[in-house]
Amino acid sequence: MRLIVHPLTLELREPFALAVGSRTTTPAVCLEVHHEGLVGYGEAALPPYLGWTQADVCQALHRVKWHEPIHLLNLDGLLSSAAAAIGPLPPALAALDMALHDLFGKYLGQPLYALWGLDLSRIPPTSFTVGLMSPAAAREKARQVVEYPVLKLKLGGDNDRALVTAVREVTDRPLTVDANQGWQDRSAALDFIGWLAEQHVLFVEQPFSAARVDDHAWLTERSPLPIIADEAVRTMADVVRATGVYHGVNIKLAKCGGLRAAHAMLTVARALGLKTLLGCMTETSCAIAAATHLAPLADWADLDGAALIANDPFVGAQLVDGRMLPPPSPGIGARLVKPLAG
Amino acid sequence: MRLIVHPLTLELREPFALAVGSRTTTPAVCLEVHHEGLVGYGEAALPPYLGWTQADVCQALHRVKWHEPIHLLNLDGLLSSAAAAIGPLPPALAALDMALHDLFGKYLGQPLYALWGLDLSRIPPTSFTVGLMSPAAAREKARQVVEYPVLKLKLGGDNDRALVTAVREVTDRPLTVDANQGWQDRSAALDFIGWLAEQHVLFVEQPFSAARVDDHAWLTERSPLPIIADEAVRTMADVVRATGVYHGVNIKLAKCGGLRAAHAMLTVARALGLKTLLGCMTETSCAIAAATHLAPLADWADLDGAALIANDPFVGAQLVDGRMLPPPSPGIGARLVKPLAG
Repeated sequence: MRLIVHPLTLELREPFALAVGSRTTTPAVCLEVHHEGLVGYGEAALPPYLGWTQADVCQALHRVKWHEPIHLLNLDGLLSSAAAAIGPLPPALAALDMALHDLFGKYLGQPLYALWGLDLSRIPPTSFTVGLMSPAAAREKARQVVEYPVLKLKLGGDNDRALVTAVREVTDRPLTVDANQGWQDRSAALDFIGWLAEQHVLFVEQPFSAARVDDHAWLTERSPLPIIADEAVRTMADVVRATGVYHGVNIKLAKCGGLRAAHAMLTVARALGLKTLLGCMTETSCAIAAATHLAPLADWADLDGAALIANDPFVGAQLVDGRMLPPPSPGIGARLVKPLAG
Repeated sequence: MRLIVHPLTLELREPFALAVGSRTTTPAVCLEVHHEGLVGYGEAALPPYLGWTQADVCQALHRVKWHEPIHLLNLDGLLSSAAAAIGPLPPALAALDMALHDLFGKYLGQPLYALWGLDLSRIPPTSFTVGLMSPAAAREKARQVVEYPVLKLKLGGDNDRALVTAVREVTDRPLTVDANQGWQDRSAALDFIGWLAEQHVLFVEQPFSAARVDDHAWLTERSPLPIIADEAVRTMADVVRATGVYHGVNIKLAKCGGLRAAHAMLTVARALGLKTLLGCMTETSCAIAAATHLAPLADWADLDGAALIANDPFVGAQLVDGRMLPPPSPGIGARLVKPLAG
């Protein structure tokens, strides 16, 4: 088994607005794992706010060594020894987990969703994210992305109500709202959510700072819309702790360390009565295709990450009638269309 | 896809002692599912105290109809429509779930544990059950079953301490204890468990009636040994409710409706910090082999059910160094060695 890492600079189709300035690229590391004539692909998304670098991921992946003979189907054995070598670096673990699952499916000749016995007809519609921008720009963006049945609005700035109003002027599609920890006052948040509930909004993500557990619990008890944890949920322990604090959780491969962890976390969240949102980073069609295989376990999907990238080296999931469907090919099913190296 | 049901009377190697009298047989229904040249096997164990009959199971399974074309790998789709037809009859659902998983693995050419990516090296030792009997008989039984590294003692009668003492005279193997809801007084139970902890006992199953939630929580808070729910846990909701009431849960395919439910319940129990025991009914090597594929997810295994049967129509799991290992053949891997019909 041979690992090859490719640091990549993903170019954004449109600049991504930040509190201060904006950025036009996002770093990632793509991983190839070669084993007995097969190649598995994985990806570590590295949004700068998480603080991990491409060098961190490359070094961590180079520390992974397995004893021969390697049993490809023993994912638990391979991943647990790899996790010990990688340490607490979820994007690196996610890249390896994806590549091993890709090999696993290719070896067995089936797409991952089929090997998990999942029912594709349960895949929910996916949303397209309208970033922090002016109301006029958001209205224009909402007009453009007609193929997405749900729009996700990034709020938490100064003109939240104006943004929602502007988008509502041009579409009656359901909206979702992500405050990204940007709200401060819990009573004001509850009032605003009451208004959002009249605007056909499906749910609200991470209203306050993730550390404000009591305030989220207070809001969840009163909110007419589901309150979903994003920044507050990275690990399985976070999912368990979300009960009674949030109505649901946003699970992302890059946060939790890959498909195996995400599958278990979705199973646990559902058992605990939590709503499940399957989300993503700004990442290539490799990571997005990987996530779509788990989408039958999610109540909502937010898998538009690859649509934001101009130089995506892969093709993968297809948007069909508003749903991101996994490729029908074995494994993750993402296909390389540009060389990763150089 | 064609279902054939076989009501079976399983003959016990030794009479099974009950509060009143004893029994020498136990009823079951074996299921064959034929699909595109493959045959999958499943089993409904029907211990009489649960109240379901072979006729109940046969009628329920005959109600199962799927729309063509049938996609064998869509286990979630097939099982959810089957569950609607079968209704609340877990042994029947377990039989169907096993047969579909057997077909699933045979179609893909791999044993189930491999398709689940599980690590066989994590399978715990299995125990052998010494039923309710006199101390002298229990001592003799403990002497005989040398190949099992753990002995499980059925307690809850009048001579619990004498039974443990008698067995301890002839073996230093670890013991486990199952009170089967037979204890009444919680202080007496705590005292007795204190003594058991000095006898190298690993855990105690279901001390009181399953309905006595507060008493179990009281005992769990104080007990030096893990307190494990058996009769109190049938469904996923029961697993979630076991947190704070028990230290762990006993998961059995026949209780929860099969491999898919058991897999999810083991995942959830582990996430909630509950210890996991994988148990069984008195059932054939088909159901036992099925359970062994999940054994890497269990802290303890109690999979001796087929060893108690004189006319087992299957061979399946092998006891190797005290561990019940799944067959290496595709699917469940149980092989028919006697005709099921007639």
